[in-house]
Amino acid sequence: MAAIRIFVTGGTFDKEYNELTGALEFKDTHLPEMLRLGRCRIDVSVRTLMMIDSLDMTDADRALIVEQCRHASESHIVVTHGTDTMVETAAALANALPPAAGKTVVLTGAMIPYAFGSSDGLFNLGSALSFAQTLPPGVYLAMNGRWFPWNQVRKNKDSGVFEPL
Amino acid sequence: MAAIRIFVTGGTFDKEYNELTGALEFKDTHLPEMLRLGRCRIDVSVRTLMMIDSLDMTDADRALIVEQCRHASESHIVVTHGTDTMVETAAALANALPPAAGKTVVLTGAMIPYAFGSSDGLFNLGSALSFAQTLPPGVYLAMNGRWFPWNQVRKNKDSGVFEPL
Amino acid sequence: MAAIRIFVTGGTFDKEYNELTGALEFKDTHLPEMLRLGRCRIDVSVRTLMMIDSLDMTDADRALIVEQCRHASESHIVVTHGTDTMVETAAALANALPPAAGKTVVLTGAMIPYAFGSSDGLFNLGSALSFAQTLPPGVYLAMNGRWFPWNQVRKNKDSGVFEPL
Amino acid sequence: MAAIRIFVTGGTFDKEYNELTGALEFKDTHLPEMLRLGRCRIDVSVRTLMMIDSLDMTDADRALIVEQCRHASESHIVVTHGTDTMVETAAALANALPPAAGKTVVLTGAMIPYAFGSSDGLFNLGSALSFAQTLPPGVYLAMNGRWFPWNQVRKNKDSGVFEPL
Repeated sequence: MAAIRIFVTGGTFDKEYNELTGALEFKDTHLPEMLRLGRCRIDVSVRTLMMIDSLDMTDADRALIVEQCRHASESHIVVTHGTDTMVETAAALANALPPAAGKTVVLTGAMIPYAFGSSDGLFNLGSALSFAQTLPPGVYLAMNGRWFPWNQVRKNKDSGVFEPL
Repeated sequence: MAAIRIFVTGGTFDKEYNELTGALEFKDTHLPEMLRLGRCRIDVSVRTLMMIDSLDMTDADRALIVEQCRHASESHIVVTHGTDTMVETAAALANALPPAAGKTVVLTGAMIPYAFGSSDGLFNLGSALSFAQTLPPGVYLAMNGRWFPWNQVRKNKDSGVFEPL
Repeated sequence: MAAIRIFVTGGTFDKEYNELTGALEFKDTHLPEMLRLGRCRIDVSVRTLMMIDSLDMTDADRALIVEQCRHASESHIVVTHGTDTMVETAAALANALPPAAGKTVVLTGAMIPYAFGSSDGLFNLGSALSFAQTLPPGVYLAMNGRWFPWNQVRKNKDSGVFEPL
Repeated sequence: MAAIRIFVTGGTFDKEYNELTGALEFKDTHLPEMLRLGRCRIDVSVRTLMMIDSLDMTDADRALIVEQCRHASESHIVVTHGTDTMVETAAALANALPPAAGKTVVLTGAMIPYAFGSSDGLFNLGSALSFAQTLPPGVYLAMNGRWFPWNQVRKNKDSGVFEPL
C-alpha cells in the first residue's frame, strides 16, 4: 500500500460558521476528522500549507504548494483546494511536475463546507484518495465523482460543475 | 466518460431505524440521495437487486448478483453489499467474470448506516466509484479508502477493518 | 391544546450556503422541516413575514411584525428572529401588546444556521414552542434553554450568550 | 434561574450503532453533548441512573428513579426515558411525588436515536427543559412539542405519537 500525502490549502472544504460574527471563516482543517469518519486505513499524512479561499491565492501561495509537492517523499499526493482557482493551481503543478517526475497529484475540493450537513466533501475525499492510488503520474482534478487531466477541465461557474474541455 | 452500473444489495449501507419497532430494517436504498449529495456527474444507473443483510445472503442471491453483473451492458460496476460476506460474493463474481470478461467490478459497503450522522458510506461510495473507473478488469473490494483484489483480503471481525491476506 | 402561530422573519436560523457564490443567503424557511423532525403535533401554522438578517431590520419591518402579532387569531405566538436585534423587536412588540392583550409572544433564534450539522436551532425551537404554551401573556425571549422577559435580557456580543440584565 | 436535575435512564435517546455487531446498544449518554449543541445555559446537572431499553425496566428500576427524584435537591427535574413504558414510570413518580411535594418532573424521550441524523431528541430536550421550568409541581410527559399530565396520556403504538386520553 502506497503512502499518500495530503496537503491542505483551505477552500470551501474547511470553511466554518463563526457564530459570533455570522461570517464563514477558516479555523483548523477537518481532514483528520473526515479520514476518521471514512475509517480510512491508507498510510496518510496530512499537512496544512495554508487556510485560504482560493480566490485569494497568490502566485507565492502557488509556488509554495508546488515546492511542497516536489519535495514530498510520497509519490501519491492529494491537495484540498478551493474550487474557483483549482485549475490554475493544477496548471502550476503540472508545469513543475511532468509525468516523468513520477508523482500522481490529485486536487479536490467541495461545493459545500464539510461542517454543513449536506457537504459533498466526504464523497470527494474518498474519490480523490482513490484516484491518487490508481492514476498514472500526472496532475489531475477529482470532482463530481470524476477525474480530469489538469488541462482538460474547467469549472462551469453557472452550474458549479466541473466539465471536460 | 465510461458509464457505471450500481447494483444495490442492501447491507449496513442502507439500514434504517424503524421508529415504531425500534429495529433496524431496510426500506428504499439511499444511493440516489448519496449520489446527489456527492454532486456525482458520472453516467450512473442504479438498480436494486435485493435489500438484505449479507449474513442472510443465499447461494441463489449470489447467483442473481453474478448474472446481473455478467449481463450488464456497462464494463464498470459497483456493488453495494453488507461487509460480513462481501468476500464470498466477490469470489462468486470472480469465478464467473475473469479479467478476460473485460469488466471491473468493485464491491463496497459501510460499517455505519448512511442514515446515521457518522456513516462512512459517502466516503466509501466516492472511493468505489473512483476505483471502478481506474482499475483494470477484475473483481475488487473497496473499503477503508483502499482497494483489494477479491482473493487478497479479509474482514477482521474484531476491528471491523478490511486487511490484506 | 392551544393553537400556536409561528412568524418567520429570517435570521441565522434560516441561513443557507449558496454553493455557487460561496455566500450565506436566505431561501425558504426550514421551519416546516424542523417541525417534522421534532415530530411536532401542536396545532401550528407557519407564516413567513420576511427573510432578512436582523441587522437589516427596519422600523417598517418591526411595525409589520407587531401588526401581524396583534391581528393573529392565536393567543400563543413564536417569532423566529436574528439574535442581534431580537431585543429591539421584543420591545416594539411589548409596547403594542401589553399583558392585558392576552397574548404570549416568544422570540427565538439560533447561533448556527439550521442547515449546519451543529445548529442549536432545533433545541431552541422546542424550547420556544414550550414556553409559548406555558408562560402567561407577555413578550419573552427564549435562548440558551432559558426564557427572559423582554426588558430583562441582553445578548452578550462577546460570548454570544443571552444574559439577564 | 432555577437549577434543573436531569436523570438519564437510557431509551431510544441514547441508543448507538455498534459497528462490529451491527446491533443497537447503549454506551455513554449523549446528554452533555446535546446540552452543548443547544448552547444550554441553564444550571443543569446530569446523572445517569441506568442505560436500558424501557421495555426492560423493572419495578426495582422504577423504584430507583422514584427515590432519586424524591431525594434530589432540585425542584425541577427532567427524566430521559424510553417511550414504550414512559407512562408507567410517570405513574410511579406521581404516586410518590404528589404536587404537594413541590417538584416538577418532566419525562421525555425520542423516537429516533440522537446519534442518527434525523432524531427528534434535541427538539424534545429543549421542550422538556422548558416545561420543567414553567409547569407547576406535578409529573408530566413532554413529547411531540406538547406536555401532558402523567395520567392523561398514552403512546399510540401504531403512529408512535403521544395522545391525550
